[in-house]
Amino acid sequence: MRKVTVFVTLKQGVLDPQGKQIQASLNSLGFQEVEEVRVGKYMELTVEDGPNLAVRVHEMCEKLLANPVIEDYRVELEEAEVL
Amino acid sequence: MRKVTVFVTLKQGVLDPQGKQIQASLNSLGFQEVEEVRVGKYMELTVEDGPNLAVRVHEMCEKLLANPVIEDYRVELEEAEVL
Repeated sequence: MRKVTVFVTLKQGVLDPQGKQIQASLNSLGFQEVEEVRVGKYMELTVEDGPNLAVRVHEMCEKLLANPVIEDYRVELEEAEVL
Repeated sequence: MRKVTVFVTLKQGVLDPQGKQIQASLNSLGFQEVEEVRVGKYMELTVEDGPNLAVRVHEMCEKLLANPVIEDYRVELEEAEVL
């Protein structure tokens, strides 16, 4: 069993209204030092190990987890923790 | 200017219906090896540097970015890239 972490972020230049709103809220709460906020998704997958794991995970990102038109993604594979 | 990354994840034991749905969708797309998906948020903040930056960012998390009752958060401070 492997743990896979996927980060999905908006491409540079794509507007991020959610991030903009969080920035405005932080500013109005007294955190004036915040200049920009960009929001992304973070997914932890527990996956059965296989020979093409990295390729399969990239397929998952292209097909479902990210929208390649407006989003970038990054994949990190790590050994599952032994509990 | 510093770049700060905030990861917000659901605490262990808290149900994650969004992750469950993504897992089911991946399974039905042919990715049967996916056993669990947990979804979190990932935020990149661009913040003006100051003496208490780490403390301030933790305050932001407690007040707005995370819900400490059901979510954990993790903060990474890094030097802003020179463009």
